[in-house]
Amino acid sequence: MLGQLQHHELVVLLLSLGLLLVSARVLGEMVQRIKLPAVVGEILAGILLGPTLLGTVAPQTFHFLFPQEGANATLLEGFSVVAIVLFLMVAGMEVNLSTIWQQGRAALIVSSATMLLPFAAGFIMAWIMPDYLGRATGHGTLVFALFFGTLLAITALPVIAKILLDLRLYRTDLGMLIIATAVFCDVAGWFVFAGVMALLDPAAAGMWSITRTLLLTLGFAALVLTAGRWLIHRILPWLQAHTQWPGSVLVLALSMALLAAALTEWIGVHAIFGSFLVGIAVGDSSHLREQTRVMISRFISYFFAPLFFATIGLRLNFLQNLDLGLCALVLGVALVSKITGGRLGGRWSGLPKRESWVLGLALNTWGAMEIILGLLAWENNLITERLFVVIVMLVLVTSLLSGMSIERLLAEKIHRPFTSYLLPKGCLFNLASVSRQAVLMELSKVAAEAAQLSVTQVQEAVWHREQTMATGIGNGLAIPHARISGLKEPLVGLGVASSEIDFDAYDGQPAQLIFLVLVPVHDDTHHLQILADISRTFRRAELRDKVMQTRSYTEFVALIKTEKAESTESHV
Amino acid sequence: MLGQLQHHELVVLLLSLGLLLVSARVLGEMVQRIKLPAVVGEILAGILLGPTLLGTVAPQTFHFLFPQEGANATLLEGFSVVAIVLFLMVAGMEVNLSTIWQQGRAALIVSSATMLLPFAAGFIMAWIMPDYLGRATGHGTLVFALFFGTLLAITALPVIAKILLDLRLYRTDLGMLIIATAVFCDVAGWFVFAGVMALLDPAAAGMWSITRTLLLTLGFAALVLTAGRWLIHRILPWLQAHTQWPGSVLVLALSMALLAAALTEWIGVHAIFGSFLVGIAVGDSSHLREQTRVMISRFISYFFAPLFFATIGLRLNFLQNLDLGLCALVLGVALVSKITGGRLGGRWSGLPKRESWVLGLALNTWGAMEIILGLLAWENNLITERLFVVIVMLVLVTSLLSGMSIERLLAEKIHRPFTSYLLPKGCLFNLASVSRQAVLMELSKVAAEAAQLSVTQVQEAVWHREQTMATGIGNGLAIPHARISGLKEPLVGLGVASSEIDFDAYDGQPAQLIFLVLVPVHDDTHHLQILADISRTFRRAELRDKVMQTRSYTEFVALIKTEKAESTESHV
Repeated sequence: MLGQLQHHELVVLLLSLGLLLVSARVLGEMVQRIKLPAVVGEILAGILLGPTLLGTVAPQTFHFLFPQEGANATLLEGFSVVAIVLFLMVAGMEVNLSTIWQQGRAALIVSSATMLLPFAAGFIMAWIMPDYLGRATGHGTLVFALFFGTLLAITALPVIAKILLDLRLYRTDLGMLIIATAVFCDVAGWFVFAGVMALLDPAAAGMWSITRTLLLTLGFAALVLTAGRWLIHRILPWLQAHTQWPGSVLVLALSMALLAAALTEWIGVHAIFGSFLVGIAVGDSSHLREQTRVMISRFISYFFAPLFFATIGLRLNFLQNLDLGLCALVLGVALVSKITGGRLGGRWSGLPKRESWVLGLALNTWGAMEIILGLLAWENNLITERLFVVIVMLVLVTSLLSGMSIERLLAEKIHRPFTSYLLPKGCLFNLASVSRQAVLMELSKVAAEAAQLSVTQVQEAVWHREQTMATGIGNGLAIPHARISGLKEPLVGLGVASSEIDFDAYDGQPAQLIFLVLVPVHDDTHHLQILADISRTFRRAELRDKVMQTRSYTEFVALIKTEKAESTESHV
Repeated sequence: MLGQLQHHELVVLLLSLGLLLVSARVLGEMVQRIKLPAVVGEILAGILLGPTLLGTVAPQTFHFLFPQEGANATLLEGFSVVAIVLFLMVAGMEVNLSTIWQQGRAALIVSSATMLLPFAAGFIMAWIMPDYLGRATGHGTLVFALFFGTLLAITALPVIAKILLDLRLYRTDLGMLIIATAVFCDVAGWFVFAGVMALLDPAAAGMWSITRTLLLTLGFAALVLTAGRWLIHRILPWLQAHTQWPGSVLVLALSMALLAAALTEWIGVHAIFGSFLVGIAVGDSSHLREQTRVMISRFISYFFAPLFFATIGLRLNFLQNLDLGLCALVLGVALVSKITGGRLGGRWSGLPKRESWVLGLALNTWGAMEIILGLLAWENNLITERLFVVIVMLVLVTSLLSGMSIERLLAEKIHRPFTSYLLPKGCLFNLASVSRQAVLMELSKVAAEAAQLSVTQVQEAVWHREQTMATGIGNGLAIPHARISGLKEPLVGLGVASSEIDFDAYDGQPAQLIFLVLVPVHDDTHHLQILADISRTFRRAELRDKVMQTRSYTEFVALIKTEKAESTESHV
C-alpha cells in the first residue's frame, strides 16, 4: 500500500478535489440566488469542468485534471462513492417515520394518490415507447418501466422541506402533511427501487437469485429498522455518558453507515440503500443530540455532497445529449400526473381547494434523489446518457417551478428578515449626534439620501411620528419609524450610538441601537413584521453588545445572520 | 471515469473504511482511559488489523480487506493523503501566532533553549551513528542528521494543550508560556523540516533546484501568512453576510487547504505544509466563528484523522521491527535533552523551580506531528522501518510519562466534575418520599448501601447536618451533605422528586433535584469543589427541567456531559 501514489498523481488528486469543491460551492450559491436548489449548481460546476465545456475548450487541461483512467480516475470514483453513501445517511437521518403515523389517514390518502398516479403514468409511458424514452440495451422493458414509474413517483424531500421552511409553513398542519407524504413516497420509492436494483444485478440471472437478493434486502431493512433502531436508541446515552462526545456518536453513525453500505452492496442492491437505512435508524433516536445531528449533516452536505454532484457533471456531455423534445414530453407527463395526484389526494382527504393546489405543487419537485436513481440506472446500463440528461433538466425545471408557484399562491405569508430591508449606506456605526432629535435628523438624512428620497420629507415624517409617542422600546433599543408616501418597499436604517441617548423607554434605559424604519403608506403587514423581527432578534443583551463592536454594514449583517442561524438550528 | 470500480472493490472499500473507523475509535477511547492520547490507540487499531496481527493470524482475511496492490490499495492511500492534509489544516488552525508575541521575552528564551538543546543532541547523535539509528540507504548523513535533530526539537502541541486543559492550567501564565513555546517550536520545526523535504526531493538533484524549492516554499509561506491572512480576514465577514453560513466558510477553508497542498506538493515540499499554512491563516482571523471552528475540527479529528493514523499501523510490521535497545537510547537522549532544555529555559526566564520542572515535563511530549514527520521520512527512504517503529514507541512512552508526572507535581490542582463521584446505585429518579426528612433517609440509605457504609451512621450524620441549617440553595436545588468518618473519597447520590419538597431555600422554591454529598472528615477542598460544581452546573433552569425527564444514571450522566461540553466549547 505504501507508495501507491506518485508525486504527480498526488498533485492532481488534491488539485482536482480543491477545484471541484470550490466551484461547486460558488455555483451552488449562485443558483440559490435564483431560488434553485444548490444541487443544480453543483452539477453545473461539474458540467463546466467536464467534457461539456472544459473538455471541449481546453481538452489538455481537462485530461490533466480529470484523467479518464489510472489512479486519479479510480480515486475520484472512490471519493464520489463514499460521498454518496454518507450523503444518503444524512438523507435518512432527515426521514422522520413518526410524521407518517401522526398525519394518519390524510397522509395515507395523499401519499397513495401522489405515488400511484405518477407511477402508473410513468410505467405505461415506458412500456409503450421504451426506446424513444431512452432504455439502454442492457435490460428488458419490464425493469425499465418499473424504474421509470418509480422515478416519477418519488419526490425530493430536502427541496420540499427547504421551500416549506423558507415560507414558514414547515410546522403548520399543511406543512406536516406535505412532509409526511413526501417521506412516505420516498421510503416506498426506495423499496421499489431496491427491487429494480436486484433485477439489474448481472450476477442475479435466475429467478432464484433475484428472490434471494430481495429477501435478504427486506430482511436487512427489517432488522435495521427494528432491532437496529432499538439498539442505537439504547447505546446512544451510554456513549454520551462514558465516551468522548460527540466523537463516538459521529463514528458510530459513520462507521455503521459504511458497513451497512458494504453489506447491501454485497447483497446486490446498491451501497446507498444500506446507509440510508442506518440514517433512518440513527436519526430516529430521541437521544441523538441536535448539535451532533447538525454537525454531521453540515459537514456531509457541504463537503461530500458537492463533491459527489460535481463528479456527476464531470461524467456527462450535457449539450451533446440534450434532447429538448424528450425533456418536454417527460416534463409534461411528470407535472400533470404529480400535480393531479397531489390535488386529488388533497381534495379526497378534505383539504380546501387552494391548499390542495399547494400540496400538488409542493410535491411536484425533483431533486438529488432522482438524480441518484438516474445515475445508478445509467451506470447499470438501464438507461441512456440522453435520458439521464433529461432527468437532470427536470430537476432544474421542477424545482424552479414549484418554488415560484407556491410563493405566488402564498405571497402574503412570506416573511423576510429585517436585514433584507437594510440600506447599506443608511447604517451609521458612529453616530455624531448626542440628542434624540439630532440623531433622528442624522439617520433620516442618510437614509433618505441612500434611498433617493426627499430629505426634508423623511425628517419631518420621522420627527412628527416621534412626537406622538417616543419609540424607545427598552433594552437599549429604539425603533423610530414613519410612513413615507411614494415609497414602494420598506427600508431600514441603523444608528449605533456610543453616547447614551434617551428615547423615553419604559425601562428608563438609554438607547444605543436605533433602527429607523420607513414603510409605504398602506403597508401594515410588513411594518409590524419588521418591528417584531427587530425586537425579537435583540432580546438577548449579549447580541446587542456584540453589535456595539461591529464597524461596518457587512460585519453587522454577518453577525445577525450567524446568530440567527445558531439560535434557529438549535431549536429545529 | 465511469465504472472504474468493480462491485467487489466497492464492497472492500466500504468495509475497510468502516472497520478502520470503528476500531480506531474503540481503541482510541480505550487508551484515553489510561491517559494516553487517542492517536496511540488509532495507530494500534491499524497495527491489529495490519501485518503485525491480522496479517500473521489470518493472512487471507488481511489480504482480502487490505490488498497491497490494485484499486483498493490506491484508494486507501488516497483517503489517507486527503485525511492528513485536512488534519494538518486543523493543526494549523490551533496555532495562535499572537501568543508568542504576548509572552515576549520569556517565550523566546524558553523556546530557544527547548529547541536548540534537543536539536543539537539529535543532530550530533545522528551524525555519529547514522546507521545504527536507522538511516535508510537513500540519502546522505547531513539530511538524516537535520531530520533527526528536528524530530527531537519539536513538541506535540495538541497533547500539551489537552494536558493543560485537563489540569485547568491552560489559561494561567504558566500555561500560556508553555503553549507559546510549543507553538514557536512547532512552526520553526516545520520550516526546518520543509527544508529537509526539499533536500529529499529526487527531482532536486542539483544545488540550484534545491535553492529554488526552498525559495518558493519561503515565498509561498510569506504570502499565505501576510496577504493570504489579510484577505481571509476581509473575506470572512462578507461570506458570513452574503452566502450560506457556515457552508461557505467551511468550503473556503477546505478548498484552500487542498489547493495549497497541491501547490506545495508541486513545489517539492510535502502537501501537508501547504494546508498547515492555510490552517494558520484561517484560524488567525477573529471573524472565524467559534461554531465553525469547532465543527471543522471535530469532523476532521473524528473522521479523517483516525483513518490516517490507522493506515499508518496498517503499513507497519510492528513486532518484527521493534528494537528495544534503540528505543531506550533515543528515549534517553530525547528525555534528558528536552527536560533539561525546558528547565534551563524556565530558570533563565525567571520561573520558580517547580514551574520550571512543569515546563520541562510538559514540553517533553511527542505526538501526531512527530509520527507524521517520521512517516514522511520513511516514505522518502530517509529512515528505516525500524526507526519509524521507535518513533511510534516514543510517542507512546513520552505522552504517558508527561501526563502522569505533571499530574503528580500539581496533584492538588486537579478538578474532577461532580459526576465522577456519583454512585450509579445511589441515584433515585423516582423518589418515593414526600417530606424532607423522609427524602434524606431514603437517599442516605441507598447511598450507604451502594458504598457499603453503615446506613444508620450516614442517616444520622446527614440529618444532624440538615438540622443545623437547611440545604436548599434555591433554583429548585438542594445539596444535603455530611462528613463521614472512614470514607476515603467523596461520594454523591441523587434524588429526583416529582412532588415538591421544601428544603427551606432563600427563594422559597421547593427542591426537585436533591444531591446528597458525603465527604471524608478532613477533606475541605473536594467538598467545596463539588458543591460549587453542582450549583454552577444547574444555574440554568432549562437543564434542571431536562434532568426531570431523565430516567436512569446513564441518561443523567450523558445529559450533564454533553451540556457541559456545549457550554465550555462555546467559550473557548
